[in-house]
Amino acid sequence: MPKLKDKHKHNFGQNQACVIHILDMRVESQGADFHTVWMNEPTSNGMPLVRMIDQNRLPFEFEIFNSPALETTCEAIKDMTVRGAGAIGATAAFAMAQGFFEDRPDEARALIESTRPTAQNLFYATRFVYEAAIKGRPSDAYMAAQEVALQDELACRQIGQYGLELMPDNSKVLTHCNAGWLAFVDWGSALSPVYVAHRAGKEVFVYADMTAPRNQGGRLTAWELANEGVPHQIVPDTGLMDLMDEVRPDLVIVGADRIAANGDVANKIGTRMVALAAREFDVPFYVAAPTSTIDLATSSGKDIRIESRSYDEVTHVTGLTEDGRLETVQFTNPGSPARNRAFDVTPNKLVTAFITERGIIRPRLEDIVAVKNAA
Amino acid sequence: MPKLKDKHKHNFGQNQACVIHILDMRVESQGADFHTVWMNEPTSNGMPLVRMIDQNRLPFEFEIFNSPALETTCEAIKDMTVRGAGAIGATAAFAMAQGFFEDRPDEARALIESTRPTAQNLFYATRFVYEAAIKGRPSDAYMAAQEVALQDELACRQIGQYGLELMPDNSKVLTHCNAGWLAFVDWGSALSPVYVAHRAGKEVFVYADMTAPRNQGGRLTAWELANEGVPHQIVPDTGLMDLMDEVRPDLVIVGADRIAANGDVANKIGTRMVALAAREFDVPFYVAAPTSTIDLATSSGKDIRIESRSYDEVTHVTGLTEDGRLETVQFTNPGSPARNRAFDVTPNKLVTAFITERGIIRPRLEDIVAVKNAA
Repeated sequence: MPKLKDKHKHNFGQNQACVIHILDMRVESQGADFHTVWMNEPTSNGMPLVRMIDQNRLPFEFEIFNSPALETTCEAIKDMTVRGAGAIGATAAFAMAQGFFEDRPDEARALIESTRPTAQNLFYATRFVYEAAIKGRPSDAYMAAQEVALQDELACRQIGQYGLELMPDNSKVLTHCNAGWLAFVDWGSALSPVYVAHRAGKEVFVYADMTAPRNQGGRLTAWELANEGVPHQIVPDTGLMDLMDEVRPDLVIVGADRIAANGDVANKIGTRMVALAAREFDVPFYVAAPTSTIDLATSSGKDIRIESRSYDEVTHVTGLTEDGRLETVQFTNPGSPARNRAFDVTPNKLVTAFITERGIIRPRLEDIVAVKNAA
Repeated sequence: MPKLKDKHKHNFGQNQACVIHILDMRVESQGADFHTVWMNEPTSNGMPLVRMIDQNRLPFEFEIFNSPALETTCEAIKDMTVRGAGAIGATAAFAMAQGFFEDRPDEARALIESTRPTAQNLFYATRFVYEAAIKGRPSDAYMAAQEVALQDELACRQIGQYGLELMPDNSKVLTHCNAGWLAFVDWGSALSPVYVAHRAGKEVFVYADMTAPRNQGGRLTAWELANEGVPHQIVPDTGLMDLMDEVRPDLVIVGADRIAANGDVANKIGTRMVALAAREFDVPFYVAAPTSTIDLATSSGKDIRIESRSYDEVTHVTGLTEDGRLETVQFTNPGSPARNRAFDVTPNKLVTAFITERGIIRPRLEDIVAVKNAA
């Protein structure tokens, strides 16, 4: 989605890693336009190249990571070079295509499915490509993977259109983590209504939860919003109740990593607290997600597997020194262990509605089944 | 409270800043014993010296900051070299004594009261010393300030004794921010029951909320607990609901910066969220505080002034690089503003009880007035 200024335009050669320092950059509406992740046609070596914005380096450096093989694409999912429900899904689809080109589809599928356990889109996308090509040719996998990515983009754009109806002029929107275009192929889920509204000339102000430990709100959501010129403020995770009480946002919109059949929602750790705070202050709490995130095989949140990650992510942080170097520092008591579960599950009773590409629905089994099965 | 190992013992000369690198240190029960803040008798220049552990450098360096004059003591409160309800109170008392020695008590009182607006102990302590000495001599102020500090220490010790009754063996305790001995002259409020229980041989495990933006939980509470050998884990602020659901702590204990007459509690930003989460999971939520923190002149939380601080505190963090240097880094999108209110107000209905040095009381006006006025 970001269109880079002329001075930052860059001919991203296929095999080179390109670093643009964007600290002084205000991304504007001219120049190159990017997706979060994409796949190029097979190169001279016969293999498709998967390319993605390196999200571990944002917002400090804008770098394209090139993954020539299944293994490196899986590694990029694991280490969160690419993250976010839809972006993980598209990347998994591309990885599955690479697996076919490497002539080891079954091994590839197992490898991809072992990268991260919680995001439904990863499993959906991997299966979609696998089933499309297992009785065919690698080029079928290539096409199926491109379709996954395209569907993700179209769904997100449509979510923005439906979400627009929920936003009065001068909306104050609270969001958690990053469910913007960086979390999908483009547009995003939670932020898509914001972008659609903003581009339609509606006033909108976004409060972005920091979302420790990886601070995707303060890093990625804030970066996206700054690029689009959407006024915003970063809110420390501890500031939630004070924000609700003092600012009273009009609505909360978050994304989802997996939606169970009953409407329970796995999303970034901290989401459940935001939902509880919203209920306490009678603020509507919306979950925006493409229907590909719905998992009818998971009957409720209790059945969703939650990923635990290394506790270094909680105790260390990477940022920019005053003189412009990237440094990683430990800011907690050395030796003290930390807890790091990547997601939590928000019960359906705290969800006002889901914003999907097929419309806005209540968190009820029959509505969820119906929207999932709609053509 | 920490007693430093022999190899770290240090003769803290009165006029030197002493840095001990404590990264590899496990503080043990031999060697020097420290208060958080203390005041030495007037030196050859006729002025008392205020001395304190520099809490901005913990847990990376253990350094004593020496403040020879009113102005530098006020600066130390403002920049949080010293922080925490009781420690701020004692420091304010010492500053007030310095104001008398500098022969400008009225100016001093105004200056001290302008440092930080929320902590009740600051106003209580300043007034106590002022009234004790305004018709007397500087030495009266000196004695009154020492009394404030001593009363704080005794109250905290007693809070530990009362709190002990609330802790079953094998307690799992959740706390927010740092209300340990570093937040008071010694012992602490929320952590005093933990220390008393631990020293009495009871098993206790503490979950320490990180408490962004200044991360006093991850820095100071974790450091205190490690020094005492209390098993603990740092919890990211976003991990609250997941912790409640998965671990189900036996109780929550937090401190307080000001308690209104009706039992509303101003405490570190994020406390109200912890209280709400505790209610959602039927976990008792205790507020531990000396009665000096009760402000009968404030009828409810609505009347408590909440401090807003620079938003650099939210967007930047100081920590240790892999090769042992302290660096400050910005880890959010450069240019994006942030919200930084230092406290929030927890409504009395979310408080199970107060643990004071005069017993455990319900959050009701009549009980609060009675305990405040008890001799």
